[in-house]
Amino acid sequence: GHATMASNFVFRQLFDTKSSTYTYLLGDAESKDAVLIDPVIEHAKRDAQLVKDLNLNLKFAINTHMHADHITGTGELKKLTNCKSVISKASGAKADIHIDESDVIEFGTHKLRVFSTPGHTNGCVTYYIPEQGMAFTGDALLIRGCGRTDFQEGNSTNLYENVHGKIFSLPDETILYPAHDYKGMMSTTVDEEKRLNPRLTKSLSEFVEIMENLNLAYPKMIDKALPANKACGLYDLPEEYQT
Amino acid sequence: GHATMASNFVFRQLFDTKSSTYTYLLGDAESKDAVLIDPVIEHAKRDAQLVKDLNLNLKFAINTHMHADHITGTGELKKLTNCKSVISKASGAKADIHIDESDVIEFGTHKLRVFSTPGHTNGCVTYYIPEQGMAFTGDALLIRGCGRTDFQEGNSTNLYENVHGKIFSLPDETILYPAHDYKGMMSTTVDEEKRLNPRLTKSLSEFVEIMENLNLAYPKMIDKALPANKACGLYDLPEEYQT
Ligand SMILES: [Fe+2]
Ligand SMILES: [Fe+2]
Repeated sequence: GHATMASNFVFRQLFDTKSSTYTYLLGDAESKDAVLIDPVIEHAKRDAQLVKDLNLNLKFAINTHMHADHITGTGELKKLTNCKSVISKASGAKADIHIDESDVIEFGTHKLRVFSTPGHTNGCVTYYIPEQGMAFTGDALLIRGCGRTDFQEGNSTNLYENVHGKIFSLPDETILYPAHDYKGMMSTTVDEEKRLNPRLTKSLSEFVEIMENLNLAYPKMIDKALPANKACGLYDLPEEYQT
Repeated sequence: GHATMASNFVFRQLFDTKSSTYTYLLGDAESKDAVLIDPVIEHAKRDAQLVKDLNLNLKFAINTHMHADHITGTGELKKLTNCKSVISKASGAKADIHIDESDVIEFGTHKLRVFSTPGHTNGCVTYYIPEQGMAFTGDALLIRGCGRTDFQEGNSTNLYENVHGKIFSLPDETILYPAHDYKGMMSTTVDEEKRLNPRLTKSLSEFVEIMENLNLAYPKMIDKALPANKACGLYDLPEEYQT
């Protein structure tokens, strides 16, 4: 079943076809405060326009982690709006605000709770909004999958334990919104992933073996994305992004 | 604000990156009856698997109109499940069930109401589910846009009058789900399009002039898609789709 949505909660999912990244806009229809989770630099104008179209004020541009596959839109959004950038302390990236386990990000009457869920990277967090029954899992948990653990201090044991200990401990009906999907799927639930995730339904040792044998290609954007994302997209931009 | 979702209503939006088509899965969590709106042939297996993963039974595979840019997944879904195909009578396409203005499609306790909204094609319909405050507009109304009217007996005056008379007459907070988006946007509302649609906020005569001067390229899939879609994807499949 579906969680009941409060009438003053605004929600939009957005997509970047190049990196298959999902961006999320969450807002309070009364106070007009809004946040963006995982904006992408190429779409900063689109996202700022949507915030404006919905008569919202962007308070925070938030990342679930330091992405290796695209440059965050955070820096551009800071130029286009009055938002502050937010990322986990453990990410090692610069930002206006650093968050950590059990911190709370408020916009209007709504609250995003921070769970530290490292494993894909050291600084991965999951944002949970209990009243809406939604969680934003970044690359810790993908739909029927999970983020790779062979770069950025990835650690498959940590990933497994954090997904099981934190994300899978949320109510079964919680809707999970990942940072990516490559098959046109947009959301899942705790129940589905506990039953159907081909990797995370396995034992820890089987999971570690699966993750060690993925033989994935070197991430093609990583050498451009990481230096830029370390500064939340504000500095160290590759030439083609400099304005 | 957001409409309140009934707890027995299952909803998923799905995407085809090749044709930028959105497919929608709607289900009743109690009776398990489900429908797919605008499935795409390349994703019939994905969609049938999702129906199964959610323990649903696909009752109907429905199209908003006879698409010119992709082959419907309806035919494949009829092979993979026990569903019946549905399209408007005015489309001229074969199907198990033909619907028309003010018909109702039931799945469990939920009801999709049919509005005839021709203009992009003669057979375009909008499916409205009042209890959820959602409507599926096909190509009649896109996010900040609308379908082209220069093929398939398109008629821009009809399109304008149907969007204004039917879609824009729904409650302002109704969430509109289109058949396509090309910028990574996934939904809009009646309120937004009434305020912000660059074409449909104009007068009828200005709209007709805009639509006459779009100078769009010949639709690259139309000669393959239309013969197949005329049979709801069951027959006249281009060679590469034949199994
Ligand atoms: Fe990542
Ligand atoms: Fe169309």
